[in-house]
Amino acid sequence: MRYEESVIEGRNAVLEAFRSGKTIDRLFLLKGCQDGPVLSIARMARKQDTLIQYVPKVRLDQLCAGGKHQGVIAYAAAYEYASVEDMLALAKEKEEPPFLFLLDGIEDPHNLGAIIRTANLAGAHGVIIPKRRAAGLTAVVAKTSAGALNYTPVAKVTNLTTVMEELKKEGMWFVCADMDGTVMYDLNLTGPLGVVIGNEGEGVGRLVKERCDMTAAIPMKGDIDSLNASVAAGVLAYEAVRQRMGR
Amino acid sequence: MRYEESVIEGRNAVLEAFRSGKTIDRLFLLKGCQDGPVLSIARMARKQDTLIQYVPKVRLDQLCAGGKHQGVIAYAAAYEYASVEDMLALAKEKEEPPFLFLLDGIEDPHNLGAIIRTANLAGAHGVIIPKRRAAGLTAVVAKTSAGALNYTPVAKVTNLTTVMEELKKEGMWFVCADMDGTVMYDLNLTGPLGVVIGNEGEGVGRLVKERCDMTAAIPMKGDIDSLNASVAAGVLAYEAVRQRMGR
Repeated sequence: MRYEESVIEGRNAVLEAFRSGKTIDRLFLLKGCQDGPVLSIARMARKQDTLIQYVPKVRLDQLCAGGKHQGVIAYAAAYEYASVEDMLALAKEKEEPPFLFLLDGIEDPHNLGAIIRTANLAGAHGVIIPKRRAAGLTAVVAKTSAGALNYTPVAKVTNLTTVMEELKKEGMWFVCADMDGTVMYDLNLTGPLGVVIGNEGEGVGRLVKERCDMTAAIPMKGDIDSLNASVAAGVLAYEAVRQRMGR
Repeated sequence: MRYEESVIEGRNAVLEAFRSGKTIDRLFLLKGCQDGPVLSIARMARKQDTLIQYVPKVRLDQLCAGGKHQGVIAYAAAYEYASVEDMLALAKEKEEPPFLFLLDGIEDPHNLGAIIRTANLAGAHGVIIPKRRAAGLTAVVAKTSAGALNYTPVAKVTNLTTVMEELKKEGMWFVCADMDGTVMYDLNLTGPLGVVIGNEGEGVGRLVKERCDMTAAIPMKGDIDSLNASVAAGVLAYEAVRQRMGR
């Protein structure tokens, strides 16, 4: 388990953090702002005895690390990284075949946040990210995950391929997206599955790809090369969702 | 290239730009200025539904890249906007039922770029965006579209609902994504289809939603409210792609 301080920016992200029971250390709100969502956040903060500071916009802009704060910035205690075992246990508890996302070097924090958000809504049991050459769980990720970071376990591992080998022994199958693959509708994406998403520029690394059991091609009818990484993750994950729903 | 952004400064230059029929995305005028040429420019801008912002001199000085602005700065998209008719003609030429994306107020340029990229690869014939309360085709959009902006036609319209009414007369159906809808696998997304994507925070506007023939629910198995707008667009569009491929 690892802990890190995190800054949460934006109304939805902060609201979700409170709702999920996360400990917020300090809360900065825009002075004089009477908007409904901001008042709700202040109420939740008082209930949890969070220290609220009302500050002018210029101060919020200074504190804001990653883009738009919408008048709300919170400092959360920590992010508790999960282990891969936790994810398997979660799947077992829910009596579902394990469904994991493995991100092979996603570098853009907006993509990472959007993918964690997708993993949550697709019903995945966790997201595995490598320690190196990848975005970590920053304030931007927390915000773009729209609260999903508080629900979906994220594990940070030294070596994705080692983890894949271990999970294969547990009966898991891995699928990655690549243009040279089989059209995804022809693959069986039910059962214990890891969806592997490659780096924005270079796709899935060679060593990781060699460990994938299936390569899925998303139909491409246009002129350019590839979908945005978080969109590709969403499209492939939801094909798995469709199959797992028996549709 | 279909896309280039340019900044036009000074009264004569901006007047000429309007006269030549150039599409001006945004116009900055000196607050309180009542000079004849500035009033003429404002009139022409209103006629073209260009968004006008009245700002103090200090703001214009900041925006001004090269020399004297004389109280007038315009941002022109040297993007060749398409018309909705062009899109229908393209569909006809390809002998495919029209497949369009309508974006009801996407504000984040990264999302807009990613959605245009998705539209291209999903085989859509065009993307329709509204003039107001929406991201325009800026440099960030061009970059995140990964080149799709050069292939997929984008039309900018004054009123989405009016365009929808007209397209309905041509036999098109519209589907928007919303949690309270029918699960998307149960909808018929073949045929002439417009996929409507709502604003990041507020979803699809009421008037637009009333004109949608179908409301599609993307299965949500998680704890949070919604997918990122560009991911939702991808998932819904690819469900349409699957159905249109007869899979």
